[in-house]
Amino acid sequence: MAKQLIADLHGCGEIIDDPERIREAAHTAIKYVGAEIVEECIHEFSPIGVTYFAVITTSHFSVHTWPEYGYAAIDIFSCTDTVVEGIAEKLKELFEAKEVTLRTIEREINKGE
Amino acid sequence: MAKQLIADLHGCGEIIDDPERIREAAHTAIKYVGAEIVEECIHEFSPIGVTYFAVITTSHFSVHTWPEYGYAAIDIFSCTDTVVEGIAEKLKELFEAKEVTLRTIEREINKGE
Repeated sequence: MAKQLIADLHGCGEIIDDPERIREAAHTAIKYVGAEIVEECIHEFSPIGVTYFAVITTSHFSVHTWPEYGYAAIDIFSCTDTVVEGIAEKLKELFEAKEVTLRTIEREINKGE
Repeated sequence: MAKQLIADLHGCGEIIDDPERIREAAHTAIKYVGAEIVEECIHEFSPIGVTYFAVITTSHFSVHTWPEYGYAAIDIFSCTDTVVEGIAEKLKELFEAKEVTLRTIEREINKGE
């Protein structure tokens, strides 16, 4: 069973309009969950908004931001079944958010085995 | 409101161990949902497994495969609130899957507006 963490961050700071700061925050969060980056890409949308994606050793870490709404959507797809303690607080701090909503989805990798 | 489509594909064919065929299938699926690719990356895990990720005009399209279990996890994050008709059948056909389970998650981009 894999876990996918769906984090919705509202009331974010200016960081979510800055690709380099998003990359730094992502690196810290990825380290925090105990994964390593295999490959990453970052894209700035015109006129506003950033997408960051990293293939990590345990699957993926993605960030989409809508600076006009102070909103960031973060997914952490992990092929381990543990959810790291305190990840909501960590994301809140890193992306300077006022509010974080966390949902967990289970992905059944090896069904019937 | 954005929609995120979570598709779990079981009983997939050999395609899920072939990065180039995964890329082709992803391109077809992305076209099918009416989006365009902005940037993409693909990674082969050792000894087995592929991750494909595309930043698309409406957010992202990701594929993770576990060929040893015949399983592929596909996410389509879309900042429009429509879900394309027949997408489950389309993914099933493209990835030669026996079974597709589809879930939809709502992401509240502009909360309180």
